Amino acid sequence: MIPNVLAERYASPALKDIWSPEGRILLERELWLAVARAQKDLGLDIPDEALEAYEAVKNQINLESIDARERITRHDVKARIEEFNDLAGHEQLHKGMTSRDLTENVEQLQVYRSLLLMRDKTVAALARLAKLATETGDLVITGRTHNVAAQSTTFGKRLAMFGEELIDALGRFEHLIASYCVRGLKGAVGTQLDQLSLFDGDSAKVAQLEKSLASHLGIPDVWENVGQVYPRSLDFAVVSSLVELGSGPSSFAKTLRLMAGHETASEGFAPGQTGSSAMPHKMNSRSCERINGFHAILKGHLAMASSLAGDQWNEGDVSCSVVRRVMLPDAFFASDGLFETLLTVLDQMDTYPAVIEKENLHYLPFLLTTTIMMAAVKAGVGRETAHHVIKEHALATVADLRGGSLTKNDLLERLAADDRLPLDLPALESLLDANKTNTGNAPAQIESFVKTVAEVVAKHPDAASYTPGDIL
Amino acid sequence: MIPNVLAERYASPALKDIWSPEGRILLERELWLAVARAQKDLGLDIPDEALEAYEAVKNQINLESIDARERITRHDVKARIEEFNDLAGHEQLHKGMTSRDLTENVEQLQVYRSLLLMRDKTVAALARLAKLATETGDLVITGRTHNVAAQSTTFGKRLAMFGEELIDALGRFEHLIASYCVRGLKGAVGTQLDQLSLFDGDSAKVAQLEKSLASHLGIPDVWENVGQVYPRSLDFAVVSSLVELGSGPSSFAKTLRLMAGHETASEGFAPGQTGSSAMPHKMNSRSCERINGFHAILKGHLAMASSLAGDQWNEGDVSCSVVRRVMLPDAFFASDGLFETLLTVLDQMDTYPAVIEKENLHYLPFLLTTTIMMAAVKAGVGRETAHHVIKEHALATVADLRGGSLTKNDLLERLAADDRLPLDLPALESLLDANKTNTGNAPAQIESFVKTVAEVVAKHPDAASYTPGDIL
Amino acid sequence: MIPNVLAERYASPALKDIWSPEGRILLERELWLAVARAQKDLGLDIPDEALEAYEAVKNQINLESIDARERITRHDVKARIEEFNDLAGHEQLHKGMTSRDLTENVEQLQVYRSLLLMRDKTVAALARLAKLATETGDLVITGRTHNVAAQSTTFGKRLAMFGEELIDALGRFEHLIASYCVRGLKGAVGTQLDQLSLFDGDSAKVAQLEKSLASHLGIPDVWENVGQVYPRSLDFAVVSSLVELGSGPSSFAKTLRLMAGHETASEGFAPGQTGSSAMPHKMNSRSCERINGFHAILKGHLAMASSLAGDQWNEGDVSCSVVRRVMLPDAFFASDGLFETLLTVLDQMDTYPAVIEKENLHYLPFLLTTTIMMAAVKAGVGRETAHHVIKEHALATVADLRGGSLTKNDLLERLAADDRLPLDLPALESLLDANKTNTGNAPAQIESFVKTVAEVVAKHPDAASYTPGDIL
Amino acid sequence: MIPNVLAERYASPALKDIWSPEGRILLERELWLAVARAQKDLGLDIPDEALEAYEAVKNQINLESIDARERITRHDVKARIEEFNDLAGHEQLHKGMTSRDLTENVEQLQVYRSLLLMRDKTVAALARLAKLATETGDLVITGRTHNVAAQSTTFGKRLAMFGEELIDALGRFEHLIASYCVRGLKGAVGTQLDQLSLFDGDSAKVAQLEKSLASHLGIPDVWENVGQVYPRSLDFAVVSSLVELGSGPSSFAKTLRLMAGHETASEGFAPGQTGSSAMPHKMNSRSCERINGFHAILKGHLAMASSLAGDQWNEGDVSCSVVRRVMLPDAFFASDGLFETLLTVLDQMDTYPAVIEKENLHYLPFLLTTTIMMAAVKAGVGRETAHHVIKEHALATVADLRGGSLTKNDLLERLAADDRLPLDLPALESLLDANKTNTGNAPAQIESFVKTVAEVVAKHPDAASYTPGDIL
Repeated sequence: MIPNVLAERYASPALKDIWSPEGRILLERELWLAVARAQKDLGLDIPDEALEAYEAVKNQINLESIDARERITRHDVKARIEEFNDLAGHEQLHKGMTSRDLTENVEQLQVYRSLLLMRDKTVAALARLAKLATETGDLVITGRTHNVAAQSTTFGKRLAMFGEELIDALGRFEHLIASYCVRGLKGAVGTQLDQLSLFDGDSAKVAQLEKSLASHLGIPDVWENVGQVYPRSLDFAVVSSLVELGSGPSSFAKTLRLMAGHETASEGFAPGQTGSSAMPHKMNSRSCERINGFHAILKGHLAMASSLAGDQWNEGDVSCSVVRRVMLPDAFFASDGLFETLLTVLDQMDTYPAVIEKENLHYLPFLLTTTIMMAAVKAGVGRETAHHVIKEHALATVADLRGGSLTKNDLLERLAADDRLPLDLPALESLLDANKTNTGNAPAQIESFVKTVAEVVAKHPDAASYTPGDIL
Repeated sequence: MIPNVLAERYASPALKDIWSPEGRILLERELWLAVARAQKDLGLDIPDEALEAYEAVKNQINLESIDARERITRHDVKARIEEFNDLAGHEQLHKGMTSRDLTENVEQLQVYRSLLLMRDKTVAALARLAKLATETGDLVITGRTHNVAAQSTTFGKRLAMFGEELIDALGRFEHLIASYCVRGLKGAVGTQLDQLSLFDGDSAKVAQLEKSLASHLGIPDVWENVGQVYPRSLDFAVVSSLVELGSGPSSFAKTLRLMAGHETASEGFAPGQTGSSAMPHKMNSRSCERINGFHAILKGHLAMASSLAGDQWNEGDVSCSVVRRVMLPDAFFASDGLFETLLTVLDQMDTYPAVIEKENLHYLPFLLTTTIMMAAVKAGVGRETAHHVIKEHALATVADLRGGSLTKNDLLERLAADDRLPLDLPALESLLDANKTNTGNAPAQIESFVKTVAEVVAKHPDAASYTPGDIL
Repeated sequence: MIPNVLAERYASPALKDIWSPEGRILLERELWLAVARAQKDLGLDIPDEALEAYEAVKNQINLESIDARERITRHDVKARIEEFNDLAGHEQLHKGMTSRDLTENVEQLQVYRSLLLMRDKTVAALARLAKLATETGDLVITGRTHNVAAQSTTFGKRLAMFGEELIDALGRFEHLIASYCVRGLKGAVGTQLDQLSLFDGDSAKVAQLEKSLASHLGIPDVWENVGQVYPRSLDFAVVSSLVELGSGPSSFAKTLRLMAGHETASEGFAPGQTGSSAMPHKMNSRSCERINGFHAILKGHLAMASSLAGDQWNEGDVSCSVVRRVMLPDAFFASDGLFETLLTVLDQMDTYPAVIEKENLHYLPFLLTTTIMMAAVKAGVGRETAHHVIKEHALATVADLRGGSLTKNDLLERLAADDRLPLDLPALESLLDANKTNTGNAPAQIESFVKTVAEVVAKHPDAASYTPGDIL
Repeated sequence: MIPNVLAERYASPALKDIWSPEGRILLERELWLAVARAQKDLGLDIPDEALEAYEAVKNQINLESIDARERITRHDVKARIEEFNDLAGHEQLHKGMTSRDLTENVEQLQVYRSLLLMRDKTVAALARLAKLATETGDLVITGRTHNVAAQSTTFGKRLAMFGEELIDALGRFEHLIASYCVRGLKGAVGTQLDQLSLFDGDSAKVAQLEKSLASHLGIPDVWENVGQVYPRSLDFAVVSSLVELGSGPSSFAKTLRLMAGHETASEGFAPGQTGSSAMPHKMNSRSCERINGFHAILKGHLAMASSLAGDQWNEGDVSCSVVRRVMLPDAFFASDGLFETLLTVLDQMDTYPAVIEKENLHYLPFLLTTTIMMAAVKAGVGRETAHHVIKEHALATVADLRGGSLTKNDLLERLAADDRLPLDLPALESLLDANKTNTGNAPAQIESFVKTVAEVVAKHPDAASYTPGDIL
């Protein structure tokens, strides 16, 4: 059998349980039973012994047997109800239900539980990011824009930046969870005709029945005006929210890959793992690359979802069927793989302060030319003179560094040696020292991030302490 | 000059104002002034007369002059500040600001105002859908799944179905608006170093300055931990929400195109417009097709947005620049065109009850075979016999209809004529009459939809009464 | 284990064999052996008995054992070479090779063989379309634009139209196959350093080695200037070509779904299958819907491929790895499912000439108003008078048909009854008869299509006779 | 008016001419005239003076006047024919033509001419890449995989690598151009009924007419079996080929951005341009970022194209209309902007050999550990001992470099000082010298690339010498 590579190589057991063929059969059987019990409570004549018989066999799941039935009936739901009926020796389920009354609700339950799981892993990632941001809040790095040195910042602030992007996405994610509606029992075209007939037109009973179902599923809200299916723009919203959730981590992973290229940081190694013995310097960012890969996969699932949204004909059709069979589980598997990998990286990553410091020193004199000019003016030289002298030496230093005649940025020495400037080397060096750790509001920003994460964690304390499984 | 076809052919004046080159210049100038005033309030020495001079010339917008400056400086923001300075005869703006402190906030303001506009048009569409759903709540139609007759529903319910999809999307849309954060004044790498320097390290003043800016923009929330740019996953969320918002309308438009093919409904004509004189029967669904076209365009913008999300290098770069110049305005133009067209269709569409009735009658006997069987059993015939006889005649009727020997579904006549069934034609016809308008819970569902829309409209009463412009 | 749903539910055995985990291991082992044999031929000291030992065990594939090794080494290729070495009791393979020298070539071989398979299924589909187009070349149908009756055409022409789209795509597909280059043995960064070292810098031998490899793979062309990996835009070209190949079938399927809504055609049933006994009229287009679904999936894979194209860093990295593990097999599985389903539909579909004829008659009088006018003018009435009279009656007929007072288009009767026109009913009816089968150049167009298909089939005669497996 | 930003900011005049509103009107008028002249040659009675009158006014293009007409007729083609007729004082055009007979062919002509233009710019880019690859064929750089130093290569080889990707895409691009079919005059549903009627059913004349049209357009091949429109999968193939064409350049641009981060190369500056005076070291890769941005935009257009492909209903509809109005010109504008920017970068880019050399020296000792081991073994030490000693020192060196106690890789010194190894420093240094420029087959690979480019250039000599316009 050809396995689902996302599930088998990358996803966690908890998510695989939700989407396994066996797991799905069980969810369906439990839904059938929940509906039947509610129908009985509302007056339908369903014998207790039947319900007990179903309950007793509901865990006997034989995929081959179901598959054999489907090859005959060519109807997947029919095959599954027959199997369950035969196991129990009764025919008391699926009353007044169409196939979609079963499948839509079960699939939404799988989606909903997966959403909760991804929410929890996001919390776990945020908890780690906050911890790391605190720990590296004083580690000054050369901030880069256009991939080129720009101004000083701290590594902690950089983490907080990606973390805050994740918090922003989480806000919309939690809103999606809170407002997620389940289709309910709506019948063939959405009018609930068959359930109404079953209860002799008593719409209060049908409403109560749907309420029981929602309560069984644990999804509080129910669609009112659907057709055969719930709107596929809701699936789109789900997949889109997974893309959003992966964006902060993906930017973080890309930045760590860039830093690895400069040897200022690495994603680290698993305990016991060392670099290639042939090339001991090689710290491949394979996990970070994989995070970016998962994000690319999610964008593909998004394209699938966007093909479905806005393409409903009348009360619905099944041109979405095969798409959803692939897209829904796989988008969650990819998202889960992304977060499992992210958590692993966050637990293992390293920074190399000495290399970072070297990079800072290389660039700092350039980054501080305006500060030096201000000091020179204060010391009595004219602004234009100072500007002219500094620019002259700065350009020469750059040229020499790139030209190879220089290996260390000696701008300060050059300026100190120039009589036109009244600043000597100790003065310039103390200026550089005073400013090299000036990262503006970064410490306060990190603090604010950490505080927000603490609030998130307080709402989901168990989630924060999750430990990822071993990744390949 | 090559015009932006989405803006010039389809978008409304209100949206074009937000995104016009002149409009943007004005937003920038107002932002510069708002920042300068706040800086002055916080103690910076900025002369009143300078502010007055800027204020006096801020509407003098000469794109050619700015363009000429840019061709020299090769820096768009520099060109625009120089133009404004020269017009006012002062150099008192942009203090402690980087280009992105200007452009990010202005672009977010354009996005935010466009979001509000689209929210209002959604409300307008919902108000019309609720009205139409009420008006056609009794118009029984043949509900279709797989594009094939399935069960009766009403046209009002069908509208409520697409309307409820729109309401669901609106819920997330309003959450996005409510939680939308602006970048604020963060400086080159996000640490606010330059504003802090300007205020001698007084972070309370910098915080107050950002608050003033947010208040000027009318966007309450501000990002804390950004780099050079705000996270592009926020742009992704915006474009994604526009795709969602267009999904209900797009499914509605597709269904109306299908109905036009059956002549059960049409998108109608503008006043004075008639069908082609050569082909008077031809009611082309060109506006509905266009709605679907706009949705396809939005999905393209979504792909652009998804290229940007999760692709930030370090503190940011401008590989997103040209993408956002195209994607942000165009996604709103497309969305606006979609809603302008939708509102027009909702105002002009027609249904053809006689053709609908004919379709219902064609299918009803088939749809009611189970009901007939129940009646036969009640009248004393065995269940298996009834099932057998009905199926025999139903299959023969289908075959004759498709084979061409029959033009009208005569299943009831056949059943009445068969001695094995104890039901005569009047009995069968009264059965069909009794059930042909049975659309289950559809009336109550519509009522629920109308009520929800009323609540939405109550929050935005002006929006509901918006009238779209003439469309091409 | 969670199965790959595309593979297990929809794909054909031939394609599954190419992409199965076991199949891949075998391809790798055969590649290693082919390289080793070529190296030996070129002078490397590799003992015959080692090659024989490998050959003897190459079919002993134990995935669990390999998996256990990978969990220790954390390197998939290393795990697989160790397994093979241990089985054979030798260490004579993979000389001068990097992992990518193995994996890139094997994956390209899988792609290449899959391309050939899809090419063959396209030929099979074209053969069927040509046959059907010939058979239904005289079946006049009401051609539709905007989903509304426009002008007469034939069903055969409609099939030829979608068929010619498929031929156009096939042309580019065959060009892709013909120009498809394999990466070859290029080493870690593409310079072939290690193979060169192995052969003491003899580049002629290295060139000969690559030639042997290409010959083993059956892919004639080899990349010259690659890095660690071949350019991912080639993967993009592959997936894009699958989207193209599915476009004609997808439009055909959508049109058949539309026709099923009018009961003019259906996708038919499998032998023994009948319509739902409850609703015997219901001919669901589930297979056609599925074809559209597969096409939506392919567009998702295209989005994945477009994330990879143009995103190579330096000589390459593995951010594409997880994406390609999913995208490459799944795009082919989806494409295979699409064609298996298409072939099934083409073998089973039905048309309903009587319903088609009824539709034609309903619209024909409208479609022929200009022809009637010309005849009236010839018969002596003024052009303006004729135009006026005809339009008056046509509009009234449309109104009555839609208003319900009329069930059959009686325009001819109305015109015959009007004294202002000199044409009686027999004259008008013979006019209609004469023109109702006038479908212009359609017959010649079909003939041209059939001829082109015959040429395609002549090149791949076996492919044309392929019979799809049973679909679910 | 809101301008098309892609056209106005980035595209070249030649492309803007093809897609300007005025240019399109002219193409339409020329097509009408070409058809009329051919009809006249085939026997239709069209007076010479009418053709002369049209010819005389065809350049009088007044968009406002046409627009005013469209606002009345609500039909764009009707507005344009009326304008042309009124200008000429005749009504002799558009005979037997439907709107699509005009618009499809004109749009395909715009596409076709744009394809030729992009083909030429690709040739221009290849010519530059070949020249640069030759010039930098000896410039050894540290090849990187996973963004980490891996093995030596040359900068010329790196350029040849991206260049060969571009050649591969060009091969498919030229095949697309060569096989591009135009729709021709097919009438309302594709049967050519109206042209046939015009020529009394003489299909030979209609075939001749289409041939004349194709010859006028300069597109040799004509579709046979289309409906109202040509298949939109052809538009998809066009946009997809533009994505492919941009992939090599996009990977090149991304790699140059990475190199700029290491200061080993930069995209250079326009003549007269210098780095920021405040930060003289800052070489922003804004043009390379823009290239990546254009590629992201193209992927958005690809998503639009993929929405259209496979979505044809019956003989066609216009749900594609608004999409194609945006997508077709904009995809070419983006592609043109990409190539204009690429050509500028290729003309201005710099490499910094001294910085490159420094990077090489930093990594070389690590890259050569296996070579050193072989030399040690030859000099008499046991293989295991050599491996052990070298690894010990290599790991220590890495640790010291990252830990900060070391600034220069001194592995050779450490090995020389270790008695267990029989190699002294001069021996090790000469080993390193001998191998530091060993880039395997890179020189031959470059030569092969240059030769292929020369063949491409020989086919299009004018294209190669194209100079891009000034970019913003």
